Amino acid sequence: MKGQMVYTGIRVKDMDQSVRFYTETLGMKLRGRAKNKSIQGEWAQLESSDTHQLLELNWYSSKSPLYTPWKRGVEMDHLCFRVDDLDEAVKVLEEAGAKRLGGPYLTPGWKMVDVSDPNGICIELGAPARSRRSRRR
Amino acid sequence: MKGQMVYTGIRVKDMDQSVRFYTETLGMKLRGRAKNKSIQGEWAQLESSDTHQLLELNWYSSKSPLYTPWKRGVEMDHLCFRVDDLDEAVKVLEEAGAKRLGGPYLTPGWKMVDVSDPNGICIELGAPARSRRSRRR
Repeated sequence: MKGQMVYTGIRVKDMDQSVRFYTETLGMKLRGRAKNKSIQGEWAQLESSDTHQLLELNWYSSKSPLYTPWKRGVEMDHLCFRVDDLDEAVKVLEEAGAKRLGGPYLTPGWKMVDVSDPNGICIELGAPARSRRSRRR
Repeated sequence: MKGQMVYTGIRVKDMDQSVRFYTETLGMKLRGRAKNKSIQGEWAQLESSDTHQLLELNWYSSKSPLYTPWKRGVEMDHLCFRVDDLDEAVKVLEEAGAKRLGGPYLTPGWKMVDVSDPNGICIELGAPARSRRSRRR
């Protein structure tokens, strides 16, 4: 199966503070930032100059279904991979030992399922969606 | 200050298992893998097809100075940024509230210092070194 790693998503304590840090201090470019009502949170996507590595910042309000109290260990939010066929990808991943963590989530044009890697890290698998409903981001 | 994000470095429980997962299951390419005597550990670098996102896997033996027992929360190892002037970068980061976590570490051609981002995540800053000694990777 072929996957494409799209970005690394970290969780942040304070969105404004982290956006300032990664843009003004470390020179990344802000590609987009939006609140998401369905997850009661906010995301921002940053791109590094030259290397084009992508970093997503995720913030969850205390009302978000994804919220947990902040403590050492919540910073690694997820790694995002694009796949062509989501059902097939989930099947292949489960056969490789991955556990299903959540989803499917729908966003305009995309359908996502969260699975775990061998270390417990959340892998967000995303594939082009056939529906236009939006549930996550 | 301009930084370039080079890769995301996660920590893994079992190097062989994680390399298999990210290459055979998720289709990334193994760009390099090496043991590092000075840190009593091993790293592997993976590249995603098409998107060229880079993921580094890090494994530390129980004798490594970077070793801690595995628990939820150690998976996010570090984000690596290249900078031109390491001393200036550390100064700018510290003025922005970052804390120095370790270093300098030397590797052939590179000098690195670890600092924290506003969320406590380790940012490895790397700049071209003037020395050829090797201490880390």
